[in-house]
Amino acid sequence: MEPLFLRACRRQPVERTPVWMMRQAGRYLPSYRAVRAKHTFLEMCRTPELATEVTLQPIDQLGFDAAILFSDILITLPAMGIDVTFPEKGPVIGRPVRDQAAIDALIVPDPEQELGYVMEAVRQIRGALESRGGTVPLIGFAGAPFTMLTYLVEGGGSKDYAHTRRMLFGAPESAHALLEKIAHTCAAFLEAQVAAGAQAVQLFDSWAGILAPPDFREFALRWATVVIDMLRDSATWRDRQTPIIYFVNGCAPYLDDYVTSGADMLGVDWRVDIGHVRARLGEDVALQGNMDPGALFLPPEQIRERVRAVLAAAGDRGHVFNLGHGVLPETNPEHVKAMIQAVRELSTRAGG
Amino acid sequence: MEPLFLRACRRQPVERTPVWMMRQAGRYLPSYRAVRAKHTFLEMCRTPELATEVTLQPIDQLGFDAAILFSDILITLPAMGIDVTFPEKGPVIGRPVRDQAAIDALIVPDPEQELGYVMEAVRQIRGALESRGGTVPLIGFAGAPFTMLTYLVEGGGSKDYAHTRRMLFGAPESAHALLEKIAHTCAAFLEAQVAAGAQAVQLFDSWAGILAPPDFREFALRWATVVIDMLRDSATWRDRQTPIIYFVNGCAPYLDDYVTSGADMLGVDWRVDIGHVRARLGEDVALQGNMDPGALFLPPEQIRERVRAVLAAAGDRGHVFNLGHGVLPETNPEHVKAMIQAVRELSTRAGG
Repeated sequence: MEPLFLRACRRQPVERTPVWMMRQAGRYLPSYRAVRAKHTFLEMCRTPELATEVTLQPIDQLGFDAAILFSDILITLPAMGIDVTFPEKGPVIGRPVRDQAAIDALIVPDPEQELGYVMEAVRQIRGALESRGGTVPLIGFAGAPFTMLTYLVEGGGSKDYAHTRRMLFGAPESAHALLEKIAHTCAAFLEAQVAAGAQAVQLFDSWAGILAPPDFREFALRWATVVIDMLRDSATWRDRQTPIIYFVNGCAPYLDDYVTSGADMLGVDWRVDIGHVRARLGEDVALQGNMDPGALFLPPEQIRERVRAVLAAAGDRGHVFNLGHGVLPETNPEHVKAMIQAVRELSTRAGG
Repeated sequence: MEPLFLRACRRQPVERTPVWMMRQAGRYLPSYRAVRAKHTFLEMCRTPELATEVTLQPIDQLGFDAAILFSDILITLPAMGIDVTFPEKGPVIGRPVRDQAAIDALIVPDPEQELGYVMEAVRQIRGALESRGGTVPLIGFAGAPFTMLTYLVEGGGSKDYAHTRRMLFGAPESAHALLEKIAHTCAAFLEAQVAAGAQAVQLFDSWAGILAPPDFREFALRWATVVIDMLRDSATWRDRQTPIIYFVNGCAPYLDDYVTSGADMLGVDWRVDIGHVRARLGEDVALQGNMDPGALFLPPEQIRERVRAVLAAAGDRGHVFNLGHGVLPETNPEHVKAMIQAVRELSTRAGG
């Protein structure tokens, strides 16, 4: 039988709801901070042994039902010809991409050639997970085209995304040219991760939620769909039928469009009632989410009530429990344990 | 007959849709930058003549249908005992409020005593608008309690609002004690603005959109409603029946709750289809919004099409055209003119 997490992605019957957590390999874990103290963030991403070590920490210590590759959505940028650094306050891009010449200069890299250390990490992690029994699958990931565009154009994070909006609305043909290059990079990168052993892939559209609905369709959804279609058209994917997860942070305004992405599972951020999302989207797609990461600051007994509410709203079939966004670094790992225990206990079903 | 804007707030018949713009007195205007070059931001807020000058600039130059007091939602903080500075990158609070002792130390100021320069600005602006014929009303404003809490607790803006969430979930009684002090400050401040001549007031809940629906109800909506109720209970308000506007940035997940705030008009941010909002909320509340500020980077003829789409979706009755968030500093004032012209032309109705 396939691992629990993969069956939930495919909306197959499950004996209980699987649980993992965005950024589960990260700063809230003392064992992660111990590794991070000795290495830069990029070193950790680029050293398969280190990436494997921190990817497995939350699996071994806390018992999640899926592992996610330790990496960063911006890891593809140096291979595209872009300098990026990762200070604590968030990534910084040396020369933002704001005109056609800068877009033309971008490279669509061959992932095995240029990002081989990522695929090596995938292989090592997958091997370690198999040696632990193979019940915990590995999720690979990439940044979705629109979100990657915002980083390239803004030069990092942003408060008002003014540069992004200036390109989308003032030079839409440049925006689409940039999105196309990113989409090709993204699809090839995900395909290479699947070939190396990733058993599911997640496309992160962390900033698509800044757009008005018609612009979400034109600049975010359209290109995420292109990536999903390219991946599904690949021989690698057809051999494996790897579940594809699409996550738009701030999805509430776009629900009717969101469901058309072609993904097997849609990520739901914490701001919206997941029961409302289920009612609106119907039964043909799995949902992942959506407890507020901040709710892990609650006392354990109240975390349990939050878990219960999410499970009840999301329903039994086609649900993966997750936070609605990445876990906050200030989170107490004991509270994460309480969350996992609550999901396991409260979602156990007689029928399976 | 009352000014156009006020009739739209009250859902009375109007001959066309009124238009104003959040941050319309601001950096996109060369005449604003000329004043700003000679004074600090706080000097401008605290000098009634300067506040009056920049408040009137967009009225005289661009022809908006409402003026909004030039000020800042954090202007109340020094009077509450909090040091705040306003560098270009966003406000900074010297000592964030993160425990009960800091909350206990906060003052609920008498606005006429401690913020008299704001009321003097209101009186001067109102006088200037009356001398121009009185067709353009003056909007006063304040930050809603939850949004003010985020600034006090984070010490400025934030990426993940971890301190805020730690207080809400780890020490909810402290959060409510802080929200109560802010709510009293806010209600008294708005009442004083109304007494000084503000003809409408807007409560800005700029960061309420970071909350899950039950927390939106408990920490944001509940206290905004307290402010609205306190204001309506005041003798000042009962004499004037001043329209009250409540603006939640990122309102899409909370529509069924949003409509219960008791405000006359609800602000709608740009991420959501205003036609969907109208359908969901019914006809008993006016709506304000909601063009993407970034759409002002479009060529004028496409701005016109965006205006047409918003007007069609919002309907004729009880709509004030606005952006869905503050105008971006990089905006071309000529494009703002094109937007205003489009609203005037496309919303003109035979019946009135």
